[in-house]
Amino acid sequence: MRAILTEADLHDFLQVTFPQVKDDFAVERLTPEGIVLRLMVSDKHLRPGGTVSGPSMFGLADVAFYFALMSRIGPEALAVTTNVAIDFLRKPMPDADLLGEARILKIGRQLASGDVLIRSEGQDEVVARAGLTFSIPSMKSAARVG
Amino acid sequence: MRAILTEADLHDFLQVTFPQVKDDFAVERLTPEGIVLRLMVSDKHLRPGGTVSGPSMFGLADVAFYFALMSRIGPEALAVTTNVAIDFLRKPMPDADLLGEARILKIGRQLASGDVLIRSEGQDEVVARAGLTFSIPSMKSAARVG
Amino acid sequence: MRAILTEADLHDFLQVTFPQVKDDFAVERLTPEGIVLRLMVSDKHLRPGGTVSGPSMFGLADVAFYFALMSRIGPEALAVTTNVAIDFLRKPMPDADLLGEARILKIGRQLASGDVLIRSEGQDEVVARAGLTFSIPSMKSAARVG
Amino acid sequence: MRAILTEADLHDFLQVTFPQVKDDFAVERLTPEGIVLRLMVSDKHLRPGGTVSGPSMFGLADVAFYFALMSRIGPEALAVTTNVAIDFLRKPMPDADLLGEARILKIGRQLASGDVLIRSEGQDEVVARAGLTFSIPSMKSAARVG
Repeated sequence: MRAILTEADLHDFLQVTFPQVKDDFAVERLTPEGIVLRLMVSDKHLRPGGTVSGPSMFGLADVAFYFALMSRIGPEALAVTTNVAIDFLRKPMPDADLLGEARILKIGRQLASGDVLIRSEGQDEVVARAGLTFSIPSMKSAARVG
Repeated sequence: MRAILTEADLHDFLQVTFPQVKDDFAVERLTPEGIVLRLMVSDKHLRPGGTVSGPSMFGLADVAFYFALMSRIGPEALAVTTNVAIDFLRKPMPDADLLGEARILKIGRQLASGDVLIRSEGQDEVVARAGLTFSIPSMKSAARVG
Repeated sequence: MRAILTEADLHDFLQVTFPQVKDDFAVERLTPEGIVLRLMVSDKHLRPGGTVSGPSMFGLADVAFYFALMSRIGPEALAVTTNVAIDFLRKPMPDADLLGEARILKIGRQLASGDVLIRSEGQDEVVARAGLTFSIPSMKSAARVG
Repeated sequence: MRAILTEADLHDFLQVTFPQVKDDFAVERLTPEGIVLRLMVSDKHLRPGGTVSGPSMFGLADVAFYFALMSRIGPEALAVTTNVAIDFLRKPMPDADLLGEARILKIGRQLASGDVLIRSEGQDEVVARAGLTFSIPSMKSAARVG
């Protein structure tokens, strides 16, 4: 599914709509199947031992898939997370940002679904993997309006 | 499975071991199957519209199950989250703390598993539900020592 | 949520609508939160070593939640599985039926969600636990007709 | 991770070790990240309306990941499913086999994890997606022996 927003659009959308997390995330690039989102790891994301916390990785997966979805259906649409299944596979590197690679597998009338692979920047190994489903309550009315 | 820590023990454990989240959570009570943990909701947990963010609810489920586990196997044991599947069912109440009710279903040699129901304080309806699996890499050596 | 079908209704529904699995399952009882469904374990459900196969337990969870849902919204409604997260905790007993206890946590306009605990008959320990989400595409039109 | 079994080895392993499902599945090919396994769809896999049943798709995901794992760690090792999170995205084609593409993301000392995409043969669209974790209780002793 082709993107209808550019990387610059997504950057602006992040700044305006998510002021509370705009300093945590950066849109890395659009991909044919979704996007790559960067978590700019700082002290607040860390647990003792220097590892990135589970909620921070959950947040990266959630926001990465949300932005992948927005890039395809437009920022007017509402979308809320209904389900996330996340596997934590390895410890992230201690001093590296995390990259979340979101892949959209379906955008239906009511539900969108896909997955996210999380890696430490510069590493091949997957740190965490998540499958996500979002509900799109506004698609119908959006379609009616449009 | 009987608790080997008291609520006061768990409170101390939270203060000492998790300084970065000790102001977010409070041990509400031990239960026959686990514990109830309170997320003291403040501005940093909120998304636009006043709803508690997904990562905050994920964190509540994760920490609630972790504390339930610690109350049964002791705080010396290591335990790391390997898998969480979380369903978001309803919006939390805007001005209420969240209570996470963790239930242990299995503590094995290597894996512990259970679930968490999250509700807004004073409400019956479940806001989110999570199934969790933790890996317990130190149980064997702990058992050897003990 | 109150049941609008009796156990006898559900039994008939199983016989008529699911001829291909009617010999595998039996409605054990309605509960305040859902139902208990029995998997009548036979050779075809077993893997080497006498343990019940994963797909058989998945099927029990899926059908148990489906029947719990039907008991509340009526058999005319369509409902399809969108997501199942299942944890396998212990081996089932070799010569016992399995009981799946389905609990409904939400019935919304489009989605219903809940969980199922699976035990060997006569045992307290949980063999498997599943969280499930179903899509209810026909609720709206059903509501319109009704 | 490189395969240590050939496609012919896996075929033999399926015939000998899984007599009860050997007529349902065929090893399609090894891939750099895992394998592709075919579900030879027949009447017993179908639900009313001609769609492949949920348990059949669950079984395909489970066996595909199991064979991917065996191809890397050898058939002597034991491995049991601990967790599966499966999303059902679209109806399969009515008269087509299903192909499950299993990808291994981690093989650790105790746990292996990965995912499976299921498609109707000849179609690009994903019918179902599963994330899976297996426990490998025998790896240690296997390593000791080898």
